[in-house]
Amino acid sequence: MKAVVLLSGGLDSATILAMAMEQGFTCYTLSFNYGQRHAAELNAAKKVADAMKVAVHKTIDLDLTQIGGSALTDKNIAVPQSSSAGIPITYVPARNTIFLSYALAWAEVLGISDIFIGVNAVDYSGYPDCRPEYIAAFENTARLATKAGVEGKPFRIHTPLIQMSKAEIIRKGTELGVDFSLTVSCYQADAQGHACGVCDSCRFRKEGFVNAGIPDPTIYI
Amino acid sequence: MKAVVLLSGGLDSATILAMAMEQGFTCYTLSFNYGQRHAAELNAAKKVADAMKVAVHKTIDLDLTQIGGSALTDKNIAVPQSSSAGIPITYVPARNTIFLSYALAWAEVLGISDIFIGVNAVDYSGYPDCRPEYIAAFENTARLATKAGVEGKPFRIHTPLIQMSKAEIIRKGTELGVDFSLTVSCYQADAQGHACGVCDSCRFRKEGFVNAGIPDPTIYI
Repeated sequence: MKAVVLLSGGLDSATILAMAMEQGFTCYTLSFNYGQRHAAELNAAKKVADAMKVAVHKTIDLDLTQIGGSALTDKNIAVPQSSSAGIPITYVPARNTIFLSYALAWAEVLGISDIFIGVNAVDYSGYPDCRPEYIAAFENTARLATKAGVEGKPFRIHTPLIQMSKAEIIRKGTELGVDFSLTVSCYQADAQGHACGVCDSCRFRKEGFVNAGIPDPTIYI
Repeated sequence: MKAVVLLSGGLDSATILAMAMEQGFTCYTLSFNYGQRHAAELNAAKKVADAMKVAVHKTIDLDLTQIGGSALTDKNIAVPQSSSAGIPITYVPARNTIFLSYALAWAEVLGISDIFIGVNAVDYSGYPDCRPEYIAAFENTARLATKAGVEGKPFRIHTPLIQMSKAEIIRKGTELGVDFSLTVSCYQADAQGHACGVCDSCRFRKEGFVNAGIPDPTIYI
């Protein structure tokens, strides 16, 4: 039983990898070098994949800076230090659709039907492509898009974190032995993976450790 | 009124570009350098975009050879010279989903709601991601994936060729002034864009010109 797991190097995806392994899946992890500011997360993804002994870890280069339109992919847009109403400027247009498309391609080539993605609709910042209705729509598209789907082998997009709070995710990961000190969540971490402590992603992570009652291993700048 | 048009350098996408312009759209064309054997098609796309005076032509690098699994993206798999039953080995897993995801990202950044893609469900080789039900599913995913969709501005995926025969497409393109001598359809064209004449794509194109009663400007190797 095999699964493709999208691994960003953050806390959430490290936890879904552990959950997929707990369910008995042999895991093929996929990261993207998409021109993000925080390249430290790619090193973190590699470290997590190594530590958790995945079958294959692949990093795909795709240059979303050619598209732009987000604080994460355009150096001219600043990362905000506090939440604002609505969908934040760190939203990367169609990012999860692009990521899931690659996961789908790789899964089909490997003959795999299960894909795990660490989206979260609760604590998260209101990204539209983290909602259950979006995931269901993509699953339907995947079925119709592929040779495997046509041949009656649909794809399942697993989102075990989708309704969990950050504290619940941290408790679950801790229970499964995830080493969160390897992970990087910060939108603007330095080369060593040290976190800014003030961006949305840092604030959710910090609060999560506090609410979980688990010591925060993050090193802040 | 603006549209993103996926431009492969082939006959079909040159025709949809002309059709989009006929409908009054200012066109932003998008090509992909995806590790295809037939890099000549990227030059063709550029020539078509220049000849038809599009607003912006963008070529995005994305390395599908890292994924493999198709005669078009894996040099170890030969391009077949005759049709076989079922979905052919030139099928690239999830290719149109990946391409449409990028088109969606670029459209959202540009504030554009209309995307044109030259898929064809009639003459084509049975690729699952060329069928109307697939396009409808992607359109739904696009609506749910994006900030624009959430804000009530859904995306329309235009597929004006989907029910046309190759001969009808050639007639339509000719009527709109498309210079088909600039286009390359062959799966294994040489660097100058000369066609093999024997692959599926060449055979559909050749037959199309014959059936349309229009001289074939293709130069064969």
